[in-house]
Amino acid sequence: MIKVGIVGGTGYTGVELLRLLTSHPEVELIAITSRSEAGMRVDDMFPSLRGHVDLCFTEPTEEELGQCDLIFFATPNGVAMRTVPALLDRGVRIVDLSADYRIKDIPTWEKWYGETHQSPELVAEAVYGLPEMNRSEIRQARLVANPGCYPTAVQLGFLPLIEKGLVDCQRLIADAKSGASGAGRQAKVAGLMGEVGESFKAYGASGHRHLPEIEQGLSLMHGRPAQVTFVPHLLPMIRGIEATLYAELKDDSVDLQALFEERYKNEPFVDVLPFGSHPETRSVRGGNVCRMALHRQGDRPVVIITSVIDNLVKGAAGQAIQNMNIMFECREDAGLDMPALMP
Amino acid sequence: MIKVGIVGGTGYTGVELLRLLTSHPEVELIAITSRSEAGMRVDDMFPSLRGHVDLCFTEPTEEELGQCDLIFFATPNGVAMRTVPALLDRGVRIVDLSADYRIKDIPTWEKWYGETHQSPELVAEAVYGLPEMNRSEIRQARLVANPGCYPTAVQLGFLPLIEKGLVDCQRLIADAKSGASGAGRQAKVAGLMGEVGESFKAYGASGHRHLPEIEQGLSLMHGRPAQVTFVPHLLPMIRGIEATLYAELKDDSVDLQALFEERYKNEPFVDVLPFGSHPETRSVRGGNVCRMALHRQGDRPVVIITSVIDNLVKGAAGQAIQNMNIMFECREDAGLDMPALMP
Amino acid sequence: MIKVGIVGGTGYTGVELLRLLTSHPEVELIAITSRSEAGMRVDDMFPSLRGHVDLCFTEPTEEELGQCDLIFFATPNGVAMRTVPALLDRGVRIVDLSADYRIKDIPTWEKWYGETHQSPELVAEAVYGLPEMNRSEIRQARLVANPGCYPTAVQLGFLPLIEKGLVDCQRLIADAKSGASGAGRQAKVAGLMGEVGESFKAYGASGHRHLPEIEQGLSLMHGRPAQVTFVPHLLPMIRGIEATLYAELKDDSVDLQALFEERYKNEPFVDVLPFGSHPETRSVRGGNVCRMALHRQGDRPVVIITSVIDNLVKGAAGQAIQNMNIMFECREDAGLDMPALMP
Amino acid sequence: MIKVGIVGGTGYTGVELLRLLTSHPEVELIAITSRSEAGMRVDDMFPSLRGHVDLCFTEPTEEELGQCDLIFFATPNGVAMRTVPALLDRGVRIVDLSADYRIKDIPTWEKWYGETHQSPELVAEAVYGLPEMNRSEIRQARLVANPGCYPTAVQLGFLPLIEKGLVDCQRLIADAKSGASGAGRQAKVAGLMGEVGESFKAYGASGHRHLPEIEQGLSLMHGRPAQVTFVPHLLPMIRGIEATLYAELKDDSVDLQALFEERYKNEPFVDVLPFGSHPETRSVRGGNVCRMALHRQGDRPVVIITSVIDNLVKGAAGQAIQNMNIMFECREDAGLDMPALMP
Repeated sequence: MIKVGIVGGTGYTGVELLRLLTSHPEVELIAITSRSEAGMRVDDMFPSLRGHVDLCFTEPTEEELGQCDLIFFATPNGVAMRTVPALLDRGVRIVDLSADYRIKDIPTWEKWYGETHQSPELVAEAVYGLPEMNRSEIRQARLVANPGCYPTAVQLGFLPLIEKGLVDCQRLIADAKSGASGAGRQAKVAGLMGEVGESFKAYGASGHRHLPEIEQGLSLMHGRPAQVTFVPHLLPMIRGIEATLYAELKDDSVDLQALFEERYKNEPFVDVLPFGSHPETRSVRGGNVCRMALHRQGDRPVVIITSVIDNLVKGAAGQAIQNMNIMFECREDAGLDMPALMP
Repeated sequence: MIKVGIVGGTGYTGVELLRLLTSHPEVELIAITSRSEAGMRVDDMFPSLRGHVDLCFTEPTEEELGQCDLIFFATPNGVAMRTVPALLDRGVRIVDLSADYRIKDIPTWEKWYGETHQSPELVAEAVYGLPEMNRSEIRQARLVANPGCYPTAVQLGFLPLIEKGLVDCQRLIADAKSGASGAGRQAKVAGLMGEVGESFKAYGASGHRHLPEIEQGLSLMHGRPAQVTFVPHLLPMIRGIEATLYAELKDDSVDLQALFEERYKNEPFVDVLPFGSHPETRSVRGGNVCRMALHRQGDRPVVIITSVIDNLVKGAAGQAIQNMNIMFECREDAGLDMPALMP
Repeated sequence: MIKVGIVGGTGYTGVELLRLLTSHPEVELIAITSRSEAGMRVDDMFPSLRGHVDLCFTEPTEEELGQCDLIFFATPNGVAMRTVPALLDRGVRIVDLSADYRIKDIPTWEKWYGETHQSPELVAEAVYGLPEMNRSEIRQARLVANPGCYPTAVQLGFLPLIEKGLVDCQRLIADAKSGASGAGRQAKVAGLMGEVGESFKAYGASGHRHLPEIEQGLSLMHGRPAQVTFVPHLLPMIRGIEATLYAELKDDSVDLQALFEERYKNEPFVDVLPFGSHPETRSVRGGNVCRMALHRQGDRPVVIITSVIDNLVKGAAGQAIQNMNIMFECREDAGLDMPALMP
Repeated sequence: MIKVGIVGGTGYTGVELLRLLTSHPEVELIAITSRSEAGMRVDDMFPSLRGHVDLCFTEPTEEELGQCDLIFFATPNGVAMRTVPALLDRGVRIVDLSADYRIKDIPTWEKWYGETHQSPELVAEAVYGLPEMNRSEIRQARLVANPGCYPTAVQLGFLPLIEKGLVDCQRLIADAKSGASGAGRQAKVAGLMGEVGESFKAYGASGHRHLPEIEQGLSLMHGRPAQVTFVPHLLPMIRGIEATLYAELKDDSVDLQALFEERYKNEPFVDVLPFGSHPETRSVRGGNVCRMALHRQGDRPVVIITSVIDNLVKGAAGQAIQNMNIMFECREDAGLDMPALMP
């Protein structure tokens, strides 16, 4: 059994990790920490877990956490980078669901996240935890930087096209939409039902933190700098991301559907729908899968990819467990093999 | 392995049966029928099942269905009563999720359901599939009438009080609210997002089909006729039922919280929350559990019970599988042991 | 023109007052105060008002407010009772949308609202602003205590029955449901989309602040103490209250439908639907109307009333304007004559 | 008073016309037709109109309709083109909210709408009812083709850029999202709450009927063929469209914010927000306004426009009334001057 700890268990990614880990056949959950709620039973905060989790939140201490084989950080940005070094020294492996280790260029990270990085020496070592790109590196990793939710949906959608050099990488567009759980579980007026319900808007249209993460990934695929115009939007619902991606084909001789199906045929958590399908976010609700489809409008040179994930699963907790499974050589779908909840 | 068939697989209870059965360790799914969609792949209709269900809908035939050990009827009212007798003759056991066999008094059934019963000789034999009342009869049953969604939430909430004779059974009130999936997956203007969203209303306030089913159950608990005023309401959401129950105490000397905890302590799918808690429907979303709590307003003689279920799980497909598990001596929670999806 | 001020303009009742007052033919809006947002343009906070409101929020000062003919307090409980006395001394009339002057019994108010009343000498003078009960007193009032949202829906529904002495006033039940805007526009985790969306629950089932307000009103109608079991619930939507009311008939010889129609025939904002109708909250969205209908289940002695309002209009800002119209002898529906927004 | 009729009053655009016209100071509503509901009171179908509309639905007859000064067609596509010619002959003026007269190229219309046009001789005469482009032609028109909802949001967003020749008109992208009311009030499984709620998807990504309408409009602005990639999406809410528009600047020397403000400064129903704002659909709910904002990501050559309307108001009924106001020389905002409903 893998001894697992969760640092920061009171947010939506924390409770989602708990939901999924309770069904994992090879995990023993030994600690869930929360500074603010230490002492409280986990299932008092989250009654959905009654009968499934019998722990209390604890103060995070190096001693307790040092006994874990693996720790998930489900903390706000800026926490993991202060705590991870000491835990790695104790031989604990880490999957960080925050943004602390995602960006390789430290000045870029510091610009977008507004503070000085506290463990820059680990950034190069950290493996970007998108299994579809980096599976073998993840297997060996001590420290995995779990991708952001938007970057997961966007990168998986563009990946086959960019790897093959088929599209103009200076003219990529990603119009992405997320449910409200993506903003976390903090008390903010902007997140109230009365503000978010029955309404829709773009946000961060002049620049969002996930832009450099996306461009870093696309540039690696491309081998040169890629540029994407990325606009996120807020949906009046809880779970789900849809990204509609637009790319201009440089070469229109390739069977794109066959390309996508081939690229992802061995991927347990990427599902390429028939050409022209319209994946719905509900088809992945609660499930660790990215479903996508391709579209063309007549013979015009723009290829459209629609890509959906559950932002809390393949966009966060599910992908983190997928990374753990790879790191500990479990079946990659252990704890992740249930269908989505529909309707 | 239990060889299972589903008759009527295109509605919400059908797809929910499929979702749950794919995780069941002792079930082999061999047939899913639909007259209207015969030949279509199940996962073309329900992409959430891609990778989990590899069957096509078929025309229901006695030959195919006769090979099953157990068949779930997830059909509109009036279908099962025409088909079940022949299947029982072939030795198939049945869990009927429709209302055909729920009401013991045939004239009452015919009045509320508006047609002549087609297999009245089976009504007495059919076991009402509320495990918390009838577990031992279910174990032996050839034919189980799976309870309605509202009746499950209401009966479980009143049960401990009525069994003990603590409340006035002529003055029971059940104010119940259901998500829109309870109305099924038929094309009707009244079910459109534009009609149901951002609005709330009572319906059936002058009499709803679940009223005689509820009163039949409460009267059995009481040993004499019980009378309940039952008003259902339509919620602007998809899954979940909440019932707020009001009863007048005849005897106020009993520790009600202790009574409820004792009554349900061995029930795997009833969860009594601490006194004064407010169970939320999301705490049971996707899970086969009824959570409930007790309330008093000062020292007044009214006891209030708030009871929540997922109408598609403990209110339909999950309870049906629970019944199957009892009938086939599986673990009662086989296929039903995942926590709810929250948020 | 009536010179109007609003104290506390940044909440949902504040912006709703603004929306309605911009269409009022006899109102000049001269001040909107907010300590926290002083200096900000009102339409920067609420872009829906661009082109309709050209004011900035100001610090509340006695001088500025003293120039108003009428001031609406749209503040949290506890603010008005500290400020109103000085304004009354300057000859300003007040409609207080908070709870400060609703409860006549000061110890009861202090128990439920948890603080010492700061202007108890005004409580007796304050007129409870339910026009359907107190229109003539409102006309003369210096200080109107605008009713709570739940109390409006509940009292209007029970009123004709209790006035005529037809029901058992010790056995009243009010099962009420409100949209999320009723909880206001404060930053709280419990109000997030991720907490409120796609879920339903009771709250305050052991006692809610609106209970003493409701019982005070029902007791006045009854002439003796009336007792109601009141359970509020939170709906996964923004606007709207539905109350399902249950009362036991002592006298079943009266034509209840005729009674209700007669009682409300001259009321511009109460609409009695045909017997057995099911009023929807959306039928009053944005409109200052209470729609209600009566139901019976067979010949049983319980009468059921379903009553809907928009909690921000007839339950708050609209009723406040209705009161102003009565106080200043405008047409009672001035500024309030638009149909509801449906769908 | 303008004598007004509505053909097809039972859909969402029909009831929205009724809501708005009841507040219009210069309109007398004399007929509302519906073949299927003839004889039914309008406010029995739409209780939100009780007290505001005192008519019954009637069978559409030339005699009755011929007495109108203006008729709104709120019918499915294909109805108006069969009826309009005879009404024009009687001197009635028409605003057609359906698509029958929007497309000038008849083969294109017939391809996208799948039938033969029944009054092609009127297509050239029909004026495309986008006041911001065609106000003077509308004033004289006998027959106005009211624009589609998506085309309104998209064309108004691109208009200033294309008129001035600032962007590459072969590389326009319009990613648009609509609430469920845009699909109308027909009984379809795909429109159920259980299908649309808590989910999001693209549809028509390989080609949607509004594409040729949008391209016709953009090409007229451009003076040459313009090409847009247009992908609509379905939002889990009722009212509102947001379009996020992407265009590549050919000339980056112009102050785009000043350009937009100047272009729309005299338009009563277009509101340009400060640069970098994020218009929300709720800021226009129930109001006849298009709000938009401009964005850039650093110094990259892509300009982003976010544009919101209420699909039933500026996207349908409100714009139709605006056109009527222009045709009959009323104030352009008569009946249309209320703020949006927020929250």
